[in-house]
Amino acid sequence: MRPFIHEDFLLSSPSAVRLFHEFTESMPIVDYHCHLNPKEIAENRRFENLTQIWLAGDHYKWRAMRAAGVEERYITGDAADWEKFEKWAAVVPKTLRNPLYHWTHLELNRPFGIHDRLLNPDTAREIWEKCNEKLAQENFTARGIMQQMNVRLVCTTDDPADSLEFHAAIAADSSFGVRVLPTFRPDRVMLTADVVRWNQSVDLLAAVSDTEISDYSSLLTALKKRHDFFASHGCLLSDHGFGLFSFDCGTESDAAEAFRKLRSGQEISPEKTLKFQSALLVEMAVWDHEKNWTQQLHIGALRNNNRRAFQKLGPDTGFDSMIDGAFALPLSRFLDTLDQKERLPRTILYNLNPNANDMLATMAGNFQDGKTPGKIQFGSGWWFLDQKNGMEQQIESLSNQGLLSLFIGMLTDSRSFLSYTRHEYFRRILCNLLGREMDQGLLPNEIGLVGAMVQDICLNNAVQYLGLSK
Amino acid sequence: MRPFIHEDFLLSSPSAVRLFHEFTESMPIVDYHCHLNPKEIAENRRFENLTQIWLAGDHYKWRAMRAAGVEERYITGDAADWEKFEKWAAVVPKTLRNPLYHWTHLELNRPFGIHDRLLNPDTAREIWEKCNEKLAQENFTARGIMQQMNVRLVCTTDDPADSLEFHAAIAADSSFGVRVLPTFRPDRVMLTADVVRWNQSVDLLAAVSDTEISDYSSLLTALKKRHDFFASHGCLLSDHGFGLFSFDCGTESDAAEAFRKLRSGQEISPEKTLKFQSALLVEMAVWDHEKNWTQQLHIGALRNNNRRAFQKLGPDTGFDSMIDGAFALPLSRFLDTLDQKERLPRTILYNLNPNANDMLATMAGNFQDGKTPGKIQFGSGWWFLDQKNGMEQQIESLSNQGLLSLFIGMLTDSRSFLSYTRHEYFRRILCNLLGREMDQGLLPNEIGLVGAMVQDICLNNAVQYLGLSK
Amino acid sequence: MRPFIHEDFLLSSPSAVRLFHEFTESMPIVDYHCHLNPKEIAENRRFENLTQIWLAGDHYKWRAMRAAGVEERYITGDAADWEKFEKWAAVVPKTLRNPLYHWTHLELNRPFGIHDRLLNPDTAREIWEKCNEKLAQENFTARGIMQQMNVRLVCTTDDPADSLEFHAAIAADSSFGVRVLPTFRPDRVMLTADVVRWNQSVDLLAAVSDTEISDYSSLLTALKKRHDFFASHGCLLSDHGFGLFSFDCGTESDAAEAFRKLRSGQEISPEKTLKFQSALLVEMAVWDHEKNWTQQLHIGALRNNNRRAFQKLGPDTGFDSMIDGAFALPLSRFLDTLDQKERLPRTILYNLNPNANDMLATMAGNFQDGKTPGKIQFGSGWWFLDQKNGMEQQIESLSNQGLLSLFIGMLTDSRSFLSYTRHEYFRRILCNLLGREMDQGLLPNEIGLVGAMVQDICLNNAVQYLGLSK
Repeated sequence: MRPFIHEDFLLSSPSAVRLFHEFTESMPIVDYHCHLNPKEIAENRRFENLTQIWLAGDHYKWRAMRAAGVEERYITGDAADWEKFEKWAAVVPKTLRNPLYHWTHLELNRPFGIHDRLLNPDTAREIWEKCNEKLAQENFTARGIMQQMNVRLVCTTDDPADSLEFHAAIAADSSFGVRVLPTFRPDRVMLTADVVRWNQSVDLLAAVSDTEISDYSSLLTALKKRHDFFASHGCLLSDHGFGLFSFDCGTESDAAEAFRKLRSGQEISPEKTLKFQSALLVEMAVWDHEKNWTQQLHIGALRNNNRRAFQKLGPDTGFDSMIDGAFALPLSRFLDTLDQKERLPRTILYNLNPNANDMLATMAGNFQDGKTPGKIQFGSGWWFLDQKNGMEQQIESLSNQGLLSLFIGMLTDSRSFLSYTRHEYFRRILCNLLGREMDQGLLPNEIGLVGAMVQDICLNNAVQYLGLSK
Repeated sequence: MRPFIHEDFLLSSPSAVRLFHEFTESMPIVDYHCHLNPKEIAENRRFENLTQIWLAGDHYKWRAMRAAGVEERYITGDAADWEKFEKWAAVVPKTLRNPLYHWTHLELNRPFGIHDRLLNPDTAREIWEKCNEKLAQENFTARGIMQQMNVRLVCTTDDPADSLEFHAAIAADSSFGVRVLPTFRPDRVMLTADVVRWNQSVDLLAAVSDTEISDYSSLLTALKKRHDFFASHGCLLSDHGFGLFSFDCGTESDAAEAFRKLRSGQEISPEKTLKFQSALLVEMAVWDHEKNWTQQLHIGALRNNNRRAFQKLGPDTGFDSMIDGAFALPLSRFLDTLDQKERLPRTILYNLNPNANDMLATMAGNFQDGKTPGKIQFGSGWWFLDQKNGMEQQIESLSNQGLLSLFIGMLTDSRSFLSYTRHEYFRRILCNLLGREMDQGLLPNEIGLVGAMVQDICLNNAVQYLGLSK
Repeated sequence: MRPFIHEDFLLSSPSAVRLFHEFTESMPIVDYHCHLNPKEIAENRRFENLTQIWLAGDHYKWRAMRAAGVEERYITGDAADWEKFEKWAAVVPKTLRNPLYHWTHLELNRPFGIHDRLLNPDTAREIWEKCNEKLAQENFTARGIMQQMNVRLVCTTDDPADSLEFHAAIAADSSFGVRVLPTFRPDRVMLTADVVRWNQSVDLLAAVSDTEISDYSSLLTALKKRHDFFASHGCLLSDHGFGLFSFDCGTESDAAEAFRKLRSGQEISPEKTLKFQSALLVEMAVWDHEKNWTQQLHIGALRNNNRRAFQKLGPDTGFDSMIDGAFALPLSRFLDTLDQKERLPRTILYNLNPNANDMLATMAGNFQDGKTPGKIQFGSGWWFLDQKNGMEQQIESLSNQGLLSLFIGMLTDSRSFLSYTRHEYFRRILCNLLGREMDQGLLPNEIGLVGAMVQDICLNNAVQYLGLSK
């Protein structure tokens, strides 16, 4: 019997098979947005066991375990690593049709080479042992896996106050061929709801940038220094996270006043908060434009819904979901504000609620500039949409409302060294979709034409867009 | 030629056929949410003719007839039963691709055994006579049909002021094997827009509960007595209907003040209305939690759009549609408010506008508690979504954002004794979807694994979730 | 090798093939909503070359060219026609999976007869020459193409101040068999944001209608005169464009006051604007009802997002996108306001954001009147949704929430004489969808039944609905 994850997994027509195997399977990976810990790359972390590399930090799996009725002790608690893995193995068969089922077996297949069995309570022990054995080997360290998986570049996600020491260390180590670049993600100075915490972030920024931050203008100075510093470490992108995207660009004095209040420890109204954030956002986008960076907007997460869990476990532990609501108009205003200044950088729009896919894909089209091909990108299926259905919907909307051929393709957005098969997953899904349409006569049956397009989406466009060939 | 409704109807692949016939076709039905009239079960109503059992009260059919240009006289008016049926038969061919076309022929097939012809003007007379003949037989009474259709349990939907006399009568009758339980649906005390009507509802509640309702606290006392009374009749669930879900939990004194004004006949502002309703909602959810009930939230109906029709025909006559708008944040707050008190009951979220499916499915994931498997359920396709496409979309969203394997499955939500093939419809659709994916290699080709999952969704999960095995 | 556009293009099952070729392929076209320039029909314009007829004015193509990085000079600028075509030909292969790829080759196939090659830089010159040769022929003039394409009627879209001289000229010319009727589109008196421009429009209206417009009442008088004038030229429909649909019908004195302010050159608040527009909208709908016209509502465009482009190029140049946000309630109120007066005309609801499809389809059902079959129509996929996916989604929502069989079908909404294959595209998609379901057993396998439904949707329903047979 053919294994579940076989060479033609997801490829449902002859042209799909050819597109994948002949055109894209062996292409290297450019993972231009992820949340890997650069320290683990710099130190070339070796993982003790499968729980350490696979379950620790993976809030997708945690959510599934909670939904299945697994006690928190076995998820984020003090249970032994094997016990946690055993619980996870029991949940896996409950995840049929959830992307976790595909991801799990794709990852067991590569890099672990396990494709003759499914993970479940019966196979848990054997798989645990086999994988742990592998994890002890050289090519299963952080770096080893990246090299095995044919990764050429990763862009991590970093706070402006970060020293980037690990990025520097990796860059200095000529023995490691994978480029690891930082991304400028200034959430902490944007999020003012917790005034105490915000002031701490500003203090830290002041210290790191060696700048006294006494007013809005010196806040900009300090941030700009870090922006420059990130650039000196090869940074190519910035990144911002939003709930419901909103925008209201007040005057510089609005921002200055908001800063004063915040810095003196006072809370400010939602309206003033928005003006402050909008002003900062525009400012930083202008810097991105100056440096020829790409800005990324991650739109639509409703975070920390469960306050009890938040108090116990903190953020990013599996209690986030999609927000709803209208944001076409403020997004239009933000992009237009920059365009009017002729300072709109290349922009990637990531969207969490699929009911905004078509709106977003059409919005991108309003700000294409006739110079940079695909300047405004509708980004790949993000977070809850990083699955077959979500990817297909994003590809569908982008195809219908824009130019799929210029899409810069997939990224992992992941904290895990095991998630590179997410690129394989995407490539199979893309090839399946295009190949099927060739065989149905919806696309010309010209393998060279469509194959070249697939190669562009899977690698060449990102290289070109991010200026990596230089 | 194979009849339209044949044994493999909707089953498009070999595994789909096996899943349906080998695993789920013969399973009994647990219909945990419907709007059957318990009196008709208690008295074992015999229906005079097909119009009485099939057209009377079915606002889905009424809408289709109006859209097709049929005069109201033949829909809800004084035309003879045969005339109404004749008009309906003429509309049926116009409903191709509408779920009514499938439902109609599924219901003619079972229980009536008519599968060799389609309903249209040519066949109307013969079908009318054949069915009316059957309706005169013992196994086509209210109870007869339920038994034929292998129904094990139904939960009706009842006002707190209801005497539950018919539920008691049914329970007392050992000759009838189907359990018929009430559901606590306190809409009338929640809906304060018509103050006169609200006061009448409160008066009735006071009388039935033998409680003087003079303030907010005594309103709670009276409601709680009925909640207890429902429990004593085996009630397992509560139910609430919403337009756009909103929530703003004020203080107890907000609710008390709102009560005073309303009780003295004054209208209150939308803001105060919301605080009053939110306070009540939380209170009743806490009772649900205490009694280990499940709360159901039906979200997203925009009712009584057509005021002329409302004045003539009243509510629930086919003039309702979907609302739009954002509700992720208030829904999060409501669930979190209960979770913080550690009083969040098992909850089923039903959604009327499919553009909120993914949001809702991710929201459910925020409040899974690591104890009750599938505690927060994204309910089956409701009302306008109770069709192939709607069911598939709900299954898709639930699969991708949660655990389909823990889904408690289908319910009829129906006023009709003929709607049990809605479960068959759901089962065929579910088996088709899973079977096809097995045959495509998207799921493991292990019939036992997937078959068990199908059986869980079609019956076992609901039994477990509602505690019916006890 | 079979050409890309072949006789069974898009038809994926035997019944689909039969439905298209036997039932609908040769039916004439009723294009009840378009933006053709009546002058070009009256004068029977002959087009110099492919750029003139195909690229000039086509903002779909312009958007794609900008997204691909083509300079504006080659899009709307002063480059030579051949240069523009050459640039477009280079972009075409980049549009794979965008509807432009299908549309382009459908239009080259018909009327140009080019089906043995794909448009790309290699074929550009030959295709240019071949098409330009054809364009010099009699049957490739404006009228020639319409006749070739079997067009029976078109309804253009016209300002109330339009003289309709070209419509009159066409009607007077008995040598041309295609009816060309005006549509009443009073946007200019509705749009009050630019007060100066609004006053110019009112001045023009006053002049054309020979009516002094000194107050709200005389505005209505003048508009009504034009409404009557349009009727005297055979007008059958009105049309209105909206962003997010909103409605708040104040008193007549609200409208009168708003008029006074506007007419004296003052800006008015958004609330007052809405009351003014709502009052006008109701008034004109009542006229539509009196004259047995059909009103069309185009809902959901967010226009002129890019202000730099707007200043350079003006409106309708490719910088529009979808709006988001809730509008179920105001739309319900608008339709109900008319229904209460018993003055609701036949209405077509066109929707730009697909996330409102289901809501809109259910809303239509609230106002079907039991007299006019399909009175409230959910219109065909519009603008960004005028593609395979968008059409299929509209058909799906309409099928599930209403009666597809009464759908009045496709329209081009186009400025181009080459867009009639859009009807062929729609027919193939419709036949494919229905034929496939026949072959899958989701519809009865009765070609006569389904074939008649296809013919109704493709022609007969529109003829009936618009009263064209009279």
